[in-house]
Amino acid sequence: MNSAKLAALLSVFLVAGGVRAGDAGTASPSAAHVSYTADGRLEVPTTYRDWPFLTSGLDMNYASGEGGEDHHMFDNVFVDPDSLRAFRKTGSWPEGTVFVKEGREGLTKGSINRSGQFQAEPVMSLELHIKDSARFEGGWGFFDFGGNAPAQKIPLAAGCYSCHQSHGAVETTFVQFYPTLIGVARSMHTLSTDTSAGLARREQK
Amino acid sequence: MNSAKLAALLSVFLVAGGVRAGDAGTASPSAAHVSYTADGRLEVPTTYRDWPFLTSGLDMNYASGEGGEDHHMFDNVFVDPDSLRAFRKTGSWPEGTVFVKEGREGLTKGSINRSGQFQAEPVMSLELHIKDSARFEGGWGFFDFGGNAPAQKIPLAAGCYSCHQSHGAVETTFVQFYPTLIGVARSMHTLSTDTSAGLARREQK
Repeated sequence: MNSAKLAALLSVFLVAGGVRAGDAGTASPSAAHVSYTADGRLEVPTTYRDWPFLTSGLDMNYASGEGGEDHHMFDNVFVDPDSLRAFRKTGSWPEGTVFVKEGREGLTKGSINRSGQFQAEPVMSLELHIKDSARFEGGWGFFDFGGNAPAQKIPLAAGCYSCHQSHGAVETTFVQFYPTLIGVARSMHTLSTDTSAGLARREQK
Repeated sequence: MNSAKLAALLSVFLVAGGVRAGDAGTASPSAAHVSYTADGRLEVPTTYRDWPFLTSGLDMNYASGEGGEDHHMFDNVFVDPDSLRAFRKTGSWPEGTVFVKEGREGLTKGSINRSGQFQAEPVMSLELHIKDSARFEGGWGFFDFGGNAPAQKIPLAAGCYSCHQSHGAVETTFVQFYPTLIGVARSMHTLSTDTSAGLARREQK
């Protein structure tokens, strides 16, 4: 599915505010927050823009050097409200946690803006990260709506799994980039040892 | 209040998830979403990070030329959920609408990030824009927690009022920068004539 089709599909749901999906008859914990087809593919999420916002980044890149893209991209990250409530109490993510990362182009010229970047109207990418041990080998699954909808789970051999496993501040999640949650994990002592060094560098700037 | 004090004050509320303020005994519509002192100053809002997120911008500047700041700044914008529900139905903001704009520094080096910008932990600025005709001359009030808490309303002669009045896409609000709401205002025909030209330029890029 290309970006224009993704944008058109999403606009129907997002403008209307969406309908809460799959509250009843859940086959696995994450089905309380998202819907799956009978063969396990993930439906396009419809309510995530009303979920709590964790952070937004611009052109973030984990590889050395610049990304080389010819445009700017914001990533907005949301998490389902039930799991956020649990995280605030424990510093850990419960079964059923759903993260959504939404990409929108960053533009400079529009209305009265003169410099810096604001977010464009179309959704350019949509990726999910879901904790559901009843459903996914290894406990977590990644989905990307860039190429298909409903989305098939990204295979476990893909780089996103190993990168998040190696560098996640809490379990396989990048809490080091979620400014309201780092302090929770710190106080609950759930930050991974590996990321503590990275966080220290960050705070020093 | 300097940034460090603001960050310390906010962290107490935001890490804990906050307590919903002033649901009962409201003297004016916005008191359902925020709290005021007896003499009309605005208390630091505590629950806005659980409100719907509208957008995030980086280093946005409405004046010509660059801002000349020696650091990068993200602005995260939230609106109270009741007013967002109303806006989706009507394309207009009801009495009692509360917007929160939260500033956080944009950093590049931290954890595994190599380029682009992510959001730092401390809150660097906090500004509110509130529709409450029972309380504010002209219908809307601006507050800035950069210098005082509880915050006194910014006087009506300040530039923020005239700029929002002149350039707001819907009433005095910058819906032109809220990607999920532009389409609502367009379909409800509530976009101001003045901003239509700016929006067209933006869509063309």
